Amino acid sequence: MNGNTQGSRHKVVIVGAGFGGLSAAMALKNADVDVTVIDRQNHHLFQPLLYQVATAALTPAEIAAPIRSVLKDQMNTTVFMDAVIGVDPKERRVHTAGGRDIVYDTLVLATGARHSYFGNDSWAAHAPGLKTIDDATRLRQRILLAFENAEMVEDDRERRADLTFLIVGGGPTGVEMAGAIAELARSVSHDFRNIDAKSARTILVEGGPRILPQFDEKLSAQAEEDLAELGVEVRTNAMVTEISDGVAKVGDEELAVSTMIWAAGVQASRAAQWLGVEASRAGHVVVGPDLTVPGYPEIYAIGDTASHMPEGAARPLPGVAPVAKQMGQYVGHRIKRIAAGKDPGGRFRYHDLGSMATIGRNHAIAEMGRLKIRGLIGWLFWGIAHIYFLIGFRNRIAVLFSWIWAYITWQRGVRLITGINGTKAIDAASSAQPAELPPTPPASRKAVA
Amino acid sequence: MNGNTQGSRHKVVIVGAGFGGLSAAMALKNADVDVTVIDRQNHHLFQPLLYQVATAALTPAEIAAPIRSVLKDQMNTTVFMDAVIGVDPKERRVHTAGGRDIVYDTLVLATGARHSYFGNDSWAAHAPGLKTIDDATRLRQRILLAFENAEMVEDDRERRADLTFLIVGGGPTGVEMAGAIAELARSVSHDFRNIDAKSARTILVEGGPRILPQFDEKLSAQAEEDLAELGVEVRTNAMVTEISDGVAKVGDEELAVSTMIWAAGVQASRAAQWLGVEASRAGHVVVGPDLTVPGYPEIYAIGDTASHMPEGAARPLPGVAPVAKQMGQYVGHRIKRIAAGKDPGGRFRYHDLGSMATIGRNHAIAEMGRLKIRGLIGWLFWGIAHIYFLIGFRNRIAVLFSWIWAYITWQRGVRLITGINGTKAIDAASSAQPAELPPTPPASRKAVA
Repeated sequence: MNGNTQGSRHKVVIVGAGFGGLSAAMALKNADVDVTVIDRQNHHLFQPLLYQVATAALTPAEIAAPIRSVLKDQMNTTVFMDAVIGVDPKERRVHTAGGRDIVYDTLVLATGARHSYFGNDSWAAHAPGLKTIDDATRLRQRILLAFENAEMVEDDRERRADLTFLIVGGGPTGVEMAGAIAELARSVSHDFRNIDAKSARTILVEGGPRILPQFDEKLSAQAEEDLAELGVEVRTNAMVTEISDGVAKVGDEELAVSTMIWAAGVQASRAAQWLGVEASRAGHVVVGPDLTVPGYPEIYAIGDTASHMPEGAARPLPGVAPVAKQMGQYVGHRIKRIAAGKDPGGRFRYHDLGSMATIGRNHAIAEMGRLKIRGLIGWLFWGIAHIYFLIGFRNRIAVLFSWIWAYITWQRGVRLITGINGTKAIDAASSAQPAELPPTPPASRKAVA
Repeated sequence: MNGNTQGSRHKVVIVGAGFGGLSAAMALKNADVDVTVIDRQNHHLFQPLLYQVATAALTPAEIAAPIRSVLKDQMNTTVFMDAVIGVDPKERRVHTAGGRDIVYDTLVLATGARHSYFGNDSWAAHAPGLKTIDDATRLRQRILLAFENAEMVEDDRERRADLTFLIVGGGPTGVEMAGAIAELARSVSHDFRNIDAKSARTILVEGGPRILPQFDEKLSAQAEEDLAELGVEVRTNAMVTEISDGVAKVGDEELAVSTMIWAAGVQASRAAQWLGVEASRAGHVVVGPDLTVPGYPEIYAIGDTASHMPEGAARPLPGVAPVAKQMGQYVGHRIKRIAAGKDPGGRFRYHDLGSMATIGRNHAIAEMGRLKIRGLIGWLFWGIAHIYFLIGFRNRIAVLFSWIWAYITWQRGVRLITGINGTKAIDAASSAQPAELPPTPPASRKAVA
């Protein structure tokens, strides 16, 4: 089973196995090159459905696939689970946290993005964002613990704060998150005795004049209406000016909120810094028409790492999955042609397949050129498209099953609170291993405050 | 939706929602009492399948159910997610880590057990056991990272250690774990380029003369044969005398092992200490014929917390799920009868339904009285029984689907490495939040050693 790694072949190193990196690797399947894919995680993640993990509708495994499973039949491809910490473009080497130096002839940087708090980095601890499986399970833990705590606590103010959810940012992620939390609150209401979970407040704050500004105005108005129907309070033209533990300031109003979620801005990975090249304000590598980095024809930057201005366009392509995917495919095919001694082909052209966002049960909006869909049809369309694009046949069936089950029963199957050292908390309390005692047991998070 | 909690009704407090506690709560469904169930976790866990989560065959959500979901239709029952830290039997109060004092008229202690390292507590960090979802996902992470590291590492000795798995304890858990790891190694072998995952060594160490000593000798010989067929090295009459980072001493032999798993002994929870009553050597509360604690007719101890000697038996009942479940049902019905002013009924009687253990694909053994089953029939029987006993109709379908899928495709769907601050590791390397930098990125765990 050892790979056919030959020292003499052209070496392609792909950093990151998100939509961009994985597409590039897959496009190189039969190319006469050696491919090394490096990712800090062992799995490719279908980020568009990550909010459903955070709101206990899907399990992590349903939206993730081991990178090496996806690429197992590509005998020219090796996968390393390691974190890249720098690039030496002169020596053509990639440095990893694992202490490896990996030599490349061609480098593809697809390292994605993280959240940006616009200089207020202290907000991150109180209003986390959603990029990885661990982000999602931590957020799921916070949301579910808020209900648990509300059920137990005796102080009215604290209970209100526990039953208030604030989402910052009215783009697709913020809208989908707000809708999903409102639905979660409805679906769990029969499980509690001391609180009315349905009375939970979900507040969506957007700085601009309307939510989902990338959509047609009518569709974004429809989305706002759909959210209102679910009980979500949408506040447009509203700025969050302060976030601290349990308190958010929206304009002049101070809100007591236990759970806050950040969906307002992203910052590209450090790729531009590694290379010492020009970056956009948000840290993207500004790439040329063929997605190479200026001055480095052998280095490509794609997806959320890159800023690409299409010919004649007013602004760069957005940081969404289809852009990353098409960039990866383009770069993969280009490298393959170059390796085969063929003409590398023309510039990158993005084919806009449209945008979609779901608001909740039976409600979504979709816009494809002039075609605008909403309501139940939009929702079914959204569901089919997401199932279709999920990697791995098994995951498709599993997600479909989870969705149909949830639709019929109104139940969520994945309401697990994990990773809180819960084990250790009771060890602390009741078992034979006091050495594992955490400073504060999870359930006491706020109860004694 | 607020419960009909009346101050005057008889108050039953159940600590722990494992098989024992949950059965007791369910048996009190229509009783004229107020029930409070306290658990440090929000979910009931189907522990017999936990090893399948640790070996990436099932997801955590498939074998867990939120306690409040299970009990949602019992309007006399309130669920608190909190950790009990003590009991005041004179005042009839339970103290929790969340700072609550909960008053009871009747108390049911079903707080389970933890691993025992027989005084070698330092072994716990190197050879963890398997009791909770977090234990299982941590173990899954260790096992999968061992393969990842082996694929990358250049040192032969280190690679051998990464591809060696040691399981201590030849009871059902150890046997099932050993079989599952051997199967995992086979199923992932196509995904790697630099290693032959199939060559991984799985070593099962048992101190006694045979594995699965609770079974008939022929069946345990069959299990040993089945394990050998999977490539597991079974060492009986062998003692682990030392465990440290990456090294285990079995008898006189020193083994270099990256992944060790403890399945050798348990220690009851602290319930006996809380009450200041007689405990067995392993910390169990020694209960009377009606499962009450001597001197406290209003306190019951059940499941792995209790030691119960049936009339005329040579030794106490084993710490297995059916015992806990039947004890819970017995105690629930007894409390119900007492609350209704009826005769409490006779002593507890355990109905032994037999024992089962699975070794791997198509192989299991089962013993029900004189009936002894093995091979494919045993395996199907094992599967059907476990699906049947899983709580929650949704989980049954999901597990069935996962098993059938894995059987047909030989693939495991859940090979996720999570909870290793993987996110943060690459942040450290490549993004805008250096504040989140962990001391050592996960992938470098050993690579630079």
